[in-house]
Amino acid sequence: MNEKGAGDVEPLTEAELRLAARNHGMPLEALQYPVTPVGMHYLLTHFDIPVVDEAAWRLRVEGLIDRPLSLSLDDVRSFPAATRALTMECAGNGRTLMSPRALSQPWVLEAVGTGEWTGVPLATVLGEAGVQDAAVDVVFTGGDRGIDGDIEQSFQRSLTVETATESGALLAYELNDAPLPPQHGFPLRLVVPGWYGMTNVKWLSSVEVTDRPFTGYYQATSYNVRSNDDEPGEPVTRIVPRSLMIPPGIPNFYTRVRRVRAGPCALAGRAWSGLAPIATVEFSADGGETWAPAEVDPPTLGEAAWQAWRHLWNASPGDHELCCRATDQAGNRQPLRPEWNTGGYLNNSVQRVSVEVIEG
Amino acid sequence: MNEKGAGDVEPLTEAELRLAARNHGMPLEALQYPVTPVGMHYLLTHFDIPVVDEAAWRLRVEGLIDRPLSLSLDDVRSFPAATRALTMECAGNGRTLMSPRALSQPWVLEAVGTGEWTGVPLATVLGEAGVQDAAVDVVFTGGDRGIDGDIEQSFQRSLTVETATESGALLAYELNDAPLPPQHGFPLRLVVPGWYGMTNVKWLSSVEVTDRPFTGYYQATSYNVRSNDDEPGEPVTRIVPRSLMIPPGIPNFYTRVRRVRAGPCALAGRAWSGLAPIATVEFSADGGETWAPAEVDPPTLGEAAWQAWRHLWNASPGDHELCCRATDQAGNRQPLRPEWNTGGYLNNSVQRVSVEVIEG
Repeated sequence: MNEKGAGDVEPLTEAELRLAARNHGMPLEALQYPVTPVGMHYLLTHFDIPVVDEAAWRLRVEGLIDRPLSLSLDDVRSFPAATRALTMECAGNGRTLMSPRALSQPWVLEAVGTGEWTGVPLATVLGEAGVQDAAVDVVFTGGDRGIDGDIEQSFQRSLTVETATESGALLAYELNDAPLPPQHGFPLRLVVPGWYGMTNVKWLSSVEVTDRPFTGYYQATSYNVRSNDDEPGEPVTRIVPRSLMIPPGIPNFYTRVRRVRAGPCALAGRAWSGLAPIATVEFSADGGETWAPAEVDPPTLGEAAWQAWRHLWNASPGDHELCCRATDQAGNRQPLRPEWNTGGYLNNSVQRVSVEVIEG
Repeated sequence: MNEKGAGDVEPLTEAELRLAARNHGMPLEALQYPVTPVGMHYLLTHFDIPVVDEAAWRLRVEGLIDRPLSLSLDDVRSFPAATRALTMECAGNGRTLMSPRALSQPWVLEAVGTGEWTGVPLATVLGEAGVQDAAVDVVFTGGDRGIDGDIEQSFQRSLTVETATESGALLAYELNDAPLPPQHGFPLRLVVPGWYGMTNVKWLSSVEVTDRPFTGYYQATSYNVRSNDDEPGEPVTRIVPRSLMIPPGIPNFYTRVRRVRAGPCALAGRAWSGLAPIATVEFSADGGETWAPAEVDPPTLGEAAWQAWRHLWNASPGDHELCCRATDQAGNRQPLRPEWNTGGYLNNSVQRVSVEVIEG
């Protein structure tokens, strides 16, 4: 990458630019916070952020259940509450580091954040409604509406009944001890521990239990991993492991290349996986040729949130490419290079941070 | 603009992409809120967002003053407070709509927001310090440090003594009735009514009164309007008029083209100018060929915040380019097309919203 921006990434289109100007990642220095302050958590809005009138709003629970429900926000708040720290990541995080690039929200590596979500367990509400034996899927409909894949639609996603009741999913009305901000789904959203961001339907308006698998656009067409457009694809589900470092030193405003003084440099970051706790994080100062183990904290925020790591690097003058690599307890390890797919999903290849070390 | 993104905008560079992934605009549907909710206000960080230890932090007031000060946050809060609603806009808003494009943060039109800022009037603190007769400039230093224009520097800007004492500037410690979020300058920032965003130094560490004009990079080199690199340039100061509309109907996820049902369509938006209150807003449904007057509210949030406007448009089937145009009471009117400059500043040419109207 140089001052004119030549590098590994193909130039962006106007449509990608419009998305990049609206949506935003978490500046990576915010990895310093165990819980991401509101406004720094990544945010992707498929259509528009709706304004929801709390007084008129109701959550409908319907379909293959014994007792259809229509719940006000006070009704939802009257159930016993739970609070969970969840690391949320967009399935398209890292998309622009794949080539050729899928045309969608042009994330680099910032599409992540950890929130403390408070709400009622989804299992509680489904228990109250009484899910019938023939039930297969639970379909969640959001209040945002628009056009994608030439289809006019509200944003909808589904979970199997098993995942809906056993994943620890919440219907959340608070983020970081305050009512949900409009952009994060006020008054109520779904959050599912360990699943990618598209799962967590915002501005929730209905929960419908169905007798067949849901085949809506964002379930069966988008958010599927395909090596070509003719494949049915594998659905995106749980978060694959990733580690990120707080970029050390100070940045160049335009290129974001870092300047570090030679000598001991305390590196730190976070690592997470929706498949298992993180087992190891490794650090490389030579672009992934050689690796050293980093110190990794246990999952102090709970099982579905990132774990802190740190490593003391002895920075020597010159240009370096710093990398970090996580492996989870199920043996899933970040690859050195992306594995391409048509939608630009699940690119958890290692972070690469360009650093110029100068005499201290 | 089409699905593949071909349009008026040249493809973005990798460095611009990195900036776009970090910084963010205000999604234009947030024009519905008189005061922008935290997290939707635009945000540009030149370097990194620093973590400031409130207990250790002090504001130094120094230079050509009778009584140098070192103020804790409690000291700052002990002065009589003022609250002001301010519309803040980046001087580079609209940059990507100029061609050839200046290589910097690639804003489209979203780099704006209105906050309710609470703090101590800067004039109060300068009065307490006792500005000496030989004083010329007041230099504000932020806690963010990095490299720009090949110079390692902290972010710094200045105001003349006259502007510092008579502009209504605040040293703000609250945004929307809560402590400043880290990304908006915790624990203290400068906010100057009617001036572009770069004026409002975040993470303020010192205020220095000097006997000569400040010539730092962000004062004399960057943020100057030039038709070529050899000109000294005219400094960017107060905000020129702009109006924006809430994009009507529903969006296409990727292209952001709007779909509207034929029939009466209630359009609304906001307009502002740092030079004078808004006098008129006009609306065009034909790309600026013909204009109709919109209804404009008085400045209900105070003199330095945007004014609401609305217009009932009878949408007929077909493709339309919707525009709005503000004129302030000093006679400044938005141009139809950008006036180019090297830095991509002050592009207040009219907003153009592509709309597909279908039978209702």
